[in-house]
Amino acid sequence: LGIPSYTSDRYYDVTPIGVVNGLAYTKKGGATLYIESTSEEIQKPLSSLPPSQQQQNQLEPSIKTTGNLGDVMSESSTIAYTFAKNFLYELDPNNTFFSNHNIHLHSPQGNIPKDGPSAGVTMVTSLLSLALNEPVQNNLGMTGEVTITGKVITIGGVKEKTIAAKRSGLTSVIFPINNRINFEELPTYIKNDIDVTYANDYKDVFEVAFPNKKYLLNNLKTF
Amino acid sequence: LGIPSYTSDRYYDVTPIGVVNGLAYTKKGGATLYIESTSEEIQKPLSSLPPSQQQQNQLEPSIKTTGNLGDVMSESSTIAYTFAKNFLYELDPNNTFFSNHNIHLHSPQGNIPKDGPSAGVTMVTSLLSLALNEPVQNNLGMTGEVTITGKVITIGGVKEKTIAAKRSGLTSVIFPINNRINFEELPTYIKNDIDVTYANDYKDVFEVAFPNKKYLLNNLKTF
Amino acid sequence: LGIPSYTSDRYYDVTPIGVVNGLAYTKKGGATLYIESTSEEIQKPLSSLPPSQQQQNQLEPSIKTTGNLGDVMSESSTIAYTFAKNFLYELDPNNTFFSNHNIHLHSPQGNIPKDGPSAGVTMVTSLLSLALNEPVQNNLGMTGEVTITGKVITIGGVKEKTIAAKRSGLTSVIFPINNRINFEELPTYIKNDIDVTYANDYKDVFEVAFPNKKYLLNNLKTF
Repeated sequence: LGIPSYTSDRYYDVTPIGVVNGLAYTKKGGATLYIESTSEEIQKPLSSLPPSQQQQNQLEPSIKTTGNLGDVMSESSTIAYTFAKNFLYELDPNNTFFSNHNIHLHSPQGNIPKDGPSAGVTMVTSLLSLALNEPVQNNLGMTGEVTITGKVITIGGVKEKTIAAKRSGLTSVIFPINNRINFEELPTYIKNDIDVTYANDYKDVFEVAFPNKKYLLNNLKTF
Repeated sequence: LGIPSYTSDRYYDVTPIGVVNGLAYTKKGGATLYIESTSEEIQKPLSSLPPSQQQQNQLEPSIKTTGNLGDVMSESSTIAYTFAKNFLYELDPNNTFFSNHNIHLHSPQGNIPKDGPSAGVTMVTSLLSLALNEPVQNNLGMTGEVTITGKVITIGGVKEKTIAAKRSGLTSVIFPINNRINFEELPTYIKNDIDVTYANDYKDVFEVAFPNKKYLLNNLKTF
Repeated sequence: LGIPSYTSDRYYDVTPIGVVNGLAYTKKGGATLYIESTSEEIQKPLSSLPPSQQQQNQLEPSIKTTGNLGDVMSESSTIAYTFAKNFLYELDPNNTFFSNHNIHLHSPQGNIPKDGPSAGVTMVTSLLSLALNEPVQNNLGMTGEVTITGKVITIGGVKEKTIAAKRSGLTSVIFPINNRINFEELPTYIKNDIDVTYANDYKDVFEVAFPNKKYLLNNLKTF
């Protein structure tokens, strides 16, 4: 009724640190699905305490999620959290972010139930954006399940997600490498005007999402 | 019969600290939905204890909710709590309210199940009212989902909420910016006699809700 | 549609440490079912602490699982964890991996519910791969329920699992000894070109999975 639906689809002209454009596939078609993470520093013990007491007081860092996430998507956040910690440790062993902070990961539009594993890469990217204090490359959307070792695996709804990405004004997208055939089969009017990257593992996502931090990939040993 | 329904809709001539007029959209139409927060100082350790023991006694601050809130609305309180803490930290880093207090957030009429994400801005405002020890601007109602970064996003029932606000004697309302079209489309007899503010992010809400604290917005860095 | 289904079935040319090719039997036929484990070192107490404090600070190591695992498969992970700890203790009493690390065991494709006991040997192997810091023999798939004492017991779907293994490019498989008859009854075109090992207990699996660590089996006393 006079409101172009894409205006409500996109909240951020430039996504802040911790916010990533995911791409979802719903019964109503494709949609932008933001993943937003924020952190809270874990209360440090008073410096006057003897070290033994300090250690006792330190709570285990953890992640909590909101946004009406189903079981599979909740599990995805756990997998993303485990992977992001391990990946960051190889990128930069001196980065202690995850041991000093609790994480709150949210996906807006709390009245819409969300599920499925395909926000995996989006969640990892959101967590690393926080940890590296680096915003994600602008106008980039992504989708892909991630394994605990960082492999990026196949998702559904390539067509709908591509349409949603363009409708939201995104100019590049990341898909899993095994979805390449699905993208290439799209009609030209859908697949033109958008850059696509195919990811085999999370390194490929990182390179596009954080161009200024690309040099850190040289530190990777096992991933 | 003889009792105008708005008398039971409005409990407070002037809302006390921690209480905010929310606007809800129910099967029976619009309604004022109060969000009320109160706090309890976290038990300080006895001063006779050595510092190490003091630290041990300190519990993690937390929020609890009551008022027959559904899952989505409970999640909203978590999001509001996370955002309010982060936002306050930028407004005034010296304000230690949230690290010294547990919060109890309630919505009256416990027999009525309540749900949905649209009380987000109301909850944030209730928490900040407590933390700043400042009542909310009088005769103001509000509605809007809030993301973890403070974006104010679209809600439903603009017409019903506007009617409810006027019935309760409110003179101004805050709606999400993407609901502007919905308000402007209302017939004149509904939309006259009420001031409306459209919020893009929580800053816009804060400015109207706490005019005496507006100067604190100059301290914001990321929000 | 031009996508050979096996490409999406196999994620790893060479499985990294902690990753094992399991073989599953689903309604749609056989499939490769990866089990992937990763670990996180438990925060050590400061070395300056007296032993009594150290003990207090040490958190209990634990395992968590993700991947849409049903109750039976979740129990399998518990059994595998108990057995792997006991087995490793006999292989190498000086290996303190399991007392210093928390484990996260995952099975990819979070949208597919997985259940049943037949990933037992795969889980044990995944855990021992981590603990020994040794990758599993390349192109090897396995299936078998494991008891808490290490007996490998009968599973279903030998035909479908064999086909899945070949489709994924695996060149050898391990089946429980009581499934020998099922394999031998397969038509030649299915059972040719793949090496099979029949396992009576977990030792037989270990020998094939970790040829470089075979000498450790001499240390076993009760298994």
